[in-house]
Amino acid sequence: MHFYGLIGNLSAKKGKGDQLVKLLIEASKILEGHEECIQYIIAQESNNKDIIWVTEIWTSKKAHDASLQLPAIKSIIAEAMPIIEETNGLGAETVPIGGVAKNPFVDSKE
Amino acid sequence: MHFYGLIGNLSAKKGKGDQLVKLLIEASKILEGHEECIQYIIAQESNNKDIIWVTEIWTSKKAHDASLQLPAIKSIIAEAMPIIEETNGLGAETVPIGGVAKNPFVDSKE
Repeated sequence: MHFYGLIGNLSAKKGKGDQLVKLLIEASKILEGHEECIQYIIAQESNNKDIIWVTEIWTSKKAHDASLQLPAIKSIIAEAMPIIEETNGLGAETVPIGGVAKNPFVDSKE
Repeated sequence: MHFYGLIGNLSAKKGKGDQLVKLLIEASKILEGHEECIQYIIAQESNNKDIIWVTEIWTSKKAHDASLQLPAIKSIIAEAMPIIEETNGLGAETVPIGGVAKNPFVDSKE
């Protein structure tokens, strides 16, 4: 199976990193039920909480692009725009090949 | 639980991207059994197969750093060095917060 990957980062306005993470987590809750969304992981840079990385894996580019049109996703994007300083566009488009991919947010013993 | 994430890319020497991916997949097979390695995903850039992205999630930085001393990992690194043009160092150090993290390499219907 051929996947579609995206690796990108967003810079939040100064001090807004945590707020942006919250919005992206909200978006991920919507995508959790989306069969074609395999990974949508949100991470903050260790030494700058206003830089947020989002690493995504989808079954196809088409599925990813369509998700941006979901009303619930569009409204989160609109809510996030005012607190985003800069994005590196879509980020790097990749083809995920293989590796270790356990779920850190479910399997780990809280 | 507080995770340690790394998002980095490597540039292989011209035309050596596939060979470098093979070595990194070999490394991931070793890390598959490593309890503290949660994710080690290898992806090739869609428009340049010589740029390889590795996105990692570990239980701690200490666990990640220790893995670089495993004899089997050290020998793969030594094998890979001659075909690596450039790396962005360790890459971005992150704190993975949450999101969707299904396993593309196991759950997907091949």
